[in-house]
Amino acid sequence: MDLSFFTDKLTSGLANLRYGQEPTSLYEPIRYIMGLGGKRIRPVLTLMGAHLFTDELEAVVKPALATEVFHNFTLLHDDLMDQAPLRRGQPTVHEKWNPNVAILSGDVMLVRAYELLFDVPAPLLAPLLRRFSQTAAEVCEGQQWDMEFETRTDISIARYLDMIRLKTAVLLGFALELGARLGGASEEDADHLRQFGVDIGLAFQLRDDLLDVYGDAATFGKRVGGDILADKKTFLLLTAQAQASPAQQATLARHIGQPVTNEETKVAAVRAIYDELEIRPQTEALINDYFRDALQHLERVAAPETRKKPLHQLALQLLEREQ
Amino acid sequence: MDLSFFTDKLTSGLANLRYGQEPTSLYEPIRYIMGLGGKRIRPVLTLMGAHLFTDELEAVVKPALATEVFHNFTLLHDDLMDQAPLRRGQPTVHEKWNPNVAILSGDVMLVRAYELLFDVPAPLLAPLLRRFSQTAAEVCEGQQWDMEFETRTDISIARYLDMIRLKTAVLLGFALELGARLGGASEEDADHLRQFGVDIGLAFQLRDDLLDVYGDAATFGKRVGGDILADKKTFLLLTAQAQASPAQQATLARHIGQPVTNEETKVAAVRAIYDELEIRPQTEALINDYFRDALQHLERVAAPETRKKPLHQLALQLLEREQ
Repeated sequence: MDLSFFTDKLTSGLANLRYGQEPTSLYEPIRYIMGLGGKRIRPVLTLMGAHLFTDELEAVVKPALATEVFHNFTLLHDDLMDQAPLRRGQPTVHEKWNPNVAILSGDVMLVRAYELLFDVPAPLLAPLLRRFSQTAAEVCEGQQWDMEFETRTDISIARYLDMIRLKTAVLLGFALELGARLGGASEEDADHLRQFGVDIGLAFQLRDDLLDVYGDAATFGKRVGGDILADKKTFLLLTAQAQASPAQQATLARHIGQPVTNEETKVAAVRAIYDELEIRPQTEALINDYFRDALQHLERVAAPETRKKPLHQLALQLLEREQ
Repeated sequence: MDLSFFTDKLTSGLANLRYGQEPTSLYEPIRYIMGLGGKRIRPVLTLMGAHLFTDELEAVVKPALATEVFHNFTLLHDDLMDQAPLRRGQPTVHEKWNPNVAILSGDVMLVRAYELLFDVPAPLLAPLLRRFSQTAAEVCEGQQWDMEFETRTDISIARYLDMIRLKTAVLLGFALELGARLGGASEEDADHLRQFGVDIGLAFQLRDDLLDVYGDAATFGKRVGGDILADKKTFLLLTAQAQASPAQQATLARHIGQPVTNEETKVAAVRAIYDELEIRPQTEALINDYFRDALQHLERVAAPETRKKPLHQLALQLLEREQ
């Protein structure tokens, strides 16, 4: 089974979602952001998680889309909070409409995400809703920490890792757990898959931090050095600050949190310190740790190896690794 | 059973609610707005609805509070959208913290509202969650219509009544339906109670429109004439515009949607037209209609008359009517 086997199942499910009609100013933004595309990783993970245990994927499509609608709800509200002008190269909802529309359309999206879960088999309904709600609250916690970190100077690496776990990784974990439970997995297997998802999510976010500094401008899709220019407290910067000599500290302090006179100079200066401190191999080592942990969790799942292959492949693809 | 029998049951339930700890900037605003007080009408309605059919109210308290947490979530986001500085005489969350905190704390409140429903008996869980979600989306629709009406000049009275039904009345209806279902009511009785709640909600909102113009400044709690000064398209204004003679139309057009030179003059001029057109007795007649409809629905509910008395009393109290 390759990726398209799973994404094909989502395509018609996504097209058939009905969010509501009137007022159009409430529902049109939902159709707009859901139509902007994206890789649909979360519902793909749900389908792959279910497919480990069952061939009956039709009933999994709708609850799988709950994770996608929820994810897009967070993008809609996060873009407003971050005052981001663009999402996937198109105007964000608060730009195309206005901030109030973004607030209220997002609120309805959260309601619609819940609704997509209500058809799951009765014995699973309460436990899955509890896990979904816990995950949803954690994602909000992650976003709040992320915003707070912007103005704080006392962020430990552990705190940072916890923030990206909440903001990004737990939803990938829930998507897999949801699929596993719907496929009939044991609690133990569902938990291993959840942890596989969390680890992949952490590795993916760290890789994103790394690509911001060391990525290829042609393929990265964002501006290389953007995090450095924005003084973003990534794993790379926090590790550098923790390990820098007094001279390196002084150099960092001259650039981070200061008005930028020359952007290229700033990026080059910070990257030079990263190089001196070997931040890149340290980050790669941590990504490898999470990736190895993820695969160990996947190995422990009681399902046929052939069924695990799509998850293994997707993890490799997300982390852009060789086979 | 008087009102305090029901409110007492909510007090400890409210005090025991746990929204979350960290980040405090996410959860403190929730405790703040929930602590501002209010009459807790919605969970009281849920308890009263259940009490028609059962004495076992302990298990009803937690789901009843879902309506109160949801209501306060809507206040939090609505205050931000309306840029309201005060809520119950205290600074609103976006003023005391900031808009982003208001968005994100509100999001978590919606999640917490759902969570309060997950303990209901398994056979009721999916149907009640569907009804709650439908109600939640309708409340958002009502708020969106309300905001749209501010800049539109083509609002029919039917549209206005539908807006207040969505924004205010359906949640009162759901609160009662929830209680009825938890108390073991038949679908028919639950539906009569829902319609009782919707009718009371409509009557209550129309009474609020009326008091804005004809209320006693000492007891109304808001500024008398505030709706007129804000050019708010209330039932009174829409009815006046629909029934005005050309001369009265011209007078209204000189005041509504125009820069205000003298506030008292504006309020007096608009009120004079209301008086000429007998808008007050017309509004009172419509309130009476809804109130009578509400009581007819209550009558049809198969429960002892003594058990219905608290609901009857509360309706009278909400509409400030004589016994």
